[in-house]
Amino acid sequence: MADRYANFANSGLGRTVVKRLGLPDPPRLRRFQPGDPLTTGPVLLGAAPGGRLAEPVRKLVEAAGTEVTDAGSDGARYGALVFDATGIGDSTQLRALFDFFHPYARSLNVSGRVIVLGTPPEATAGPKEATAQRALEGLTRSIGKEFGRGVTAQLVYVAPGGEAALESTLRFLLSGRSAYVSGQVIRVGAGHAPAPADWERPLDGKLALVTGAARGIGAAIARTLARDGADVIALDVPAAGDALADVANQTRGRALQLDLTTADAPERLAGYLAAGPHAGVDILVHNAGITRDKTIARMDDSRWDSVLGVNLTAPERVNDLLLERGLIPPGGRVVGVASIAGIAGNRGQTNYATSKAGVIGLVQSHAPALLERGITINAVAPGFIETAMTAKMPLGLREAGRRLNSMSQGGLPIDVAETIAWFASPGSATITGNVVRVCGQSLLGA
Amino acid sequence: MADRYANFANSGLGRTVVKRLGLPDPPRLRRFQPGDPLTTGPVLLGAAPGGRLAEPVRKLVEAAGTEVTDAGSDGARYGALVFDATGIGDSTQLRALFDFFHPYARSLNVSGRVIVLGTPPEATAGPKEATAQRALEGLTRSIGKEFGRGVTAQLVYVAPGGEAALESTLRFLLSGRSAYVSGQVIRVGAGHAPAPADWERPLDGKLALVTGAARGIGAAIARTLARDGADVIALDVPAAGDALADVANQTRGRALQLDLTTADAPERLAGYLAAGPHAGVDILVHNAGITRDKTIARMDDSRWDSVLGVNLTAPERVNDLLLERGLIPPGGRVVGVASIAGIAGNRGQTNYATSKAGVIGLVQSHAPALLERGITINAVAPGFIETAMTAKMPLGLREAGRRLNSMSQGGLPIDVAETIAWFASPGSATITGNVVRVCGQSLLGA
Repeated sequence: MADRYANFANSGLGRTVVKRLGLPDPPRLRRFQPGDPLTTGPVLLGAAPGGRLAEPVRKLVEAAGTEVTDAGSDGARYGALVFDATGIGDSTQLRALFDFFHPYARSLNVSGRVIVLGTPPEATAGPKEATAQRALEGLTRSIGKEFGRGVTAQLVYVAPGGEAALESTLRFLLSGRSAYVSGQVIRVGAGHAPAPADWERPLDGKLALVTGAARGIGAAIARTLARDGADVIALDVPAAGDALADVANQTRGRALQLDLTTADAPERLAGYLAAGPHAGVDILVHNAGITRDKTIARMDDSRWDSVLGVNLTAPERVNDLLLERGLIPPGGRVVGVASIAGIAGNRGQTNYATSKAGVIGLVQSHAPALLERGITINAVAPGFIETAMTAKMPLGLREAGRRLNSMSQGGLPIDVAETIAWFASPGSATITGNVVRVCGQSLLGA
Repeated sequence: MADRYANFANSGLGRTVVKRLGLPDPPRLRRFQPGDPLTTGPVLLGAAPGGRLAEPVRKLVEAAGTEVTDAGSDGARYGALVFDATGIGDSTQLRALFDFFHPYARSLNVSGRVIVLGTPPEATAGPKEATAQRALEGLTRSIGKEFGRGVTAQLVYVAPGGEAALESTLRFLLSGRSAYVSGQVIRVGAGHAPAPADWERPLDGKLALVTGAARGIGAAIARTLARDGADVIALDVPAAGDALADVANQTRGRALQLDLTTADAPERLAGYLAAGPHAGVDILVHNAGITRDKTIARMDDSRWDSVLGVNLTAPERVNDLLLERGLIPPGGRVVGVASIAGIAGNRGQTNYATSKAGVIGLVQSHAPALLERGITINAVAPGFIETAMTAKMPLGLREAGRRLNSMSQGGLPIDVAETIAWFASPGSATITGNVVRVCGQSLLGA
């Protein structure tokens, strides 16, 4: 399941060959290791006049032990360019973006970071400000496509009153945890988000349940949540047996064999959780998913029913029962796994794309009511991730999926897992209803 | 500016060569000609139990002179498959989509139509229904990518109470007017929309102003609005001189030479319109736009300023003044021209993408207040359209843009113009805040 080409291109000999022949040159992405500094260099922080986020950001980043400067100098190298655009009140003031990014566009280290901070258009004072704030999306997405070399670019809309809830998101986006997340628009809501006692173990004392945890992305999620301090219940179908036990052992967690599509599965799961020491579950990750690809003309009804059943109806039934029974406490986190196919559709995947678009609907429709209960619900939407599943794709499709994105390579299961861990953090209390793609800014979209 | 390959592939000899060599096979798209029937064959109409739109749709389509059947038969050919999914209340009921589309997936004529009708997720009774309705997007986008042969697929969300406002949209989507529109999600709001006296001349008695009208897409917009009955003022910069006069002659309209980026231009335009026989303008199309491509590292400030000024600030200033002076009456239509680059970003187009994302913001932020005044505001977002501009692109980029979409070819300026004419119709009174891509379901997206 490795990307052999990327490994070759990053070897000593490979670098020479790639350069001489003008072949694609996928950078080796910086990925998080415990103890890593937040960035690979100082953060250059800019702001349009009148913004409200530059000062909170400066304090947060400095408190994380990272140097912040607001006076860029020629020839200096930076780990991140962060721009507070909340002061931009009309389209003529967008010029401040050019003034900040033009001189320093080439000053970022490999796997550097671009973060533009704005006000959600729907929370602005009027159409002029809303228009200018909405325009930020065109800039950040273009920068993501231009900068290359593993640089990611995001737009973070922070609601007025959300200034104190930004830390988990800044730490995620600045660090190697977000290696394969680029070109995204993230919304941070108003309110307070408690800082974890230890940012290296933000999930200490939390219980997490991960479905489809026996292998691939699910196993990576279980391991990552455990690394961040959570107790993990790894759930999969009985047929996953040994692989599931291995994941449970690696994470010092529990294995739970259960087919969630059976009629009594939600009831059995609820009983299991109610009887456990937490009397519920803090972090619920609906990762289990299957594909049964055929064009709709050639599809039989069992392919439709099984994909919709596993990917959409089962998570719905589990959510509904656990919420009804009060088994997800305040501070709870629900995370769905959607897909680029659920956003853009895909040939041969009417069933899968319908189910994954439904996951987006599930997240968006539940978010308001759950927020009142102190629970967030979000989704990740993976693009091309290197797994046993993608390793079986025909070569041409596989290579296209790998290369047609701003990172020129596929992502790893850990990239999806890190994004879920960010949603799961106590610090992400005001982040809900988001769908964040983990796709290296794939060109594919809707 | 023609797509020579598509012309060749649709010639007698070309068809043989393309088939033998397995080359891409772009279908010849059906485009509207006055007097054409609505579809190329009967409409097969299906519905999930409990839906509210099948009967209104049957009446509208039959009144337009097109046969409707709800009993599909083996071997029959259809002009369109239309499915009323408003009765779907939870994810298990999505099965009705499979049951309808599976047996008839291969029964559509070339340039056939797929339309799925749903309820906007935000207007449903609760999360279960919202989830299922949101899932429809995955289905329609996948069908758009699967069916090929010039078939388009759309999801139309009709708000409760919008049943009587659907006719202009159905006529647009079923006809050859929407040849290059596919994979779109369109929202029709609640309320009444007056049917034009003559659907072949829905804009009779209306005055339209089109900016950037001297050539390309702008000229096509002017001609199309005139064809549909509007009096047209074709506006462009003084340097466009003769070309602008030609368009005005062809449309039997007026030419207005004005550089909208100058300080006094909105005031001069307002004065011109106030003094005219309509004392205002019914249809305002902000088509004028420029590109000045460079990566942001290589861009100079004049490239930023000119693109933002022409594409975003000028339309804002014109809108604001005309609205303030009451020069856009109730029933008015404002249409912006965004771009796929404004949705997805583009390398070398930070300026252009920012301006076009801003156009989307302009539309979305003004829609609620304008609707109260009886005015709608929407945008088109063109993908790869065959114009003098795209003809100058490097061959590789041009061919990629042409082929990487569900139609396997570029669109024509008329395709953008027809979409704008649909927004402009009196029948589209409850359609506002929409951004509709005219891109043949381009793979590129955000």
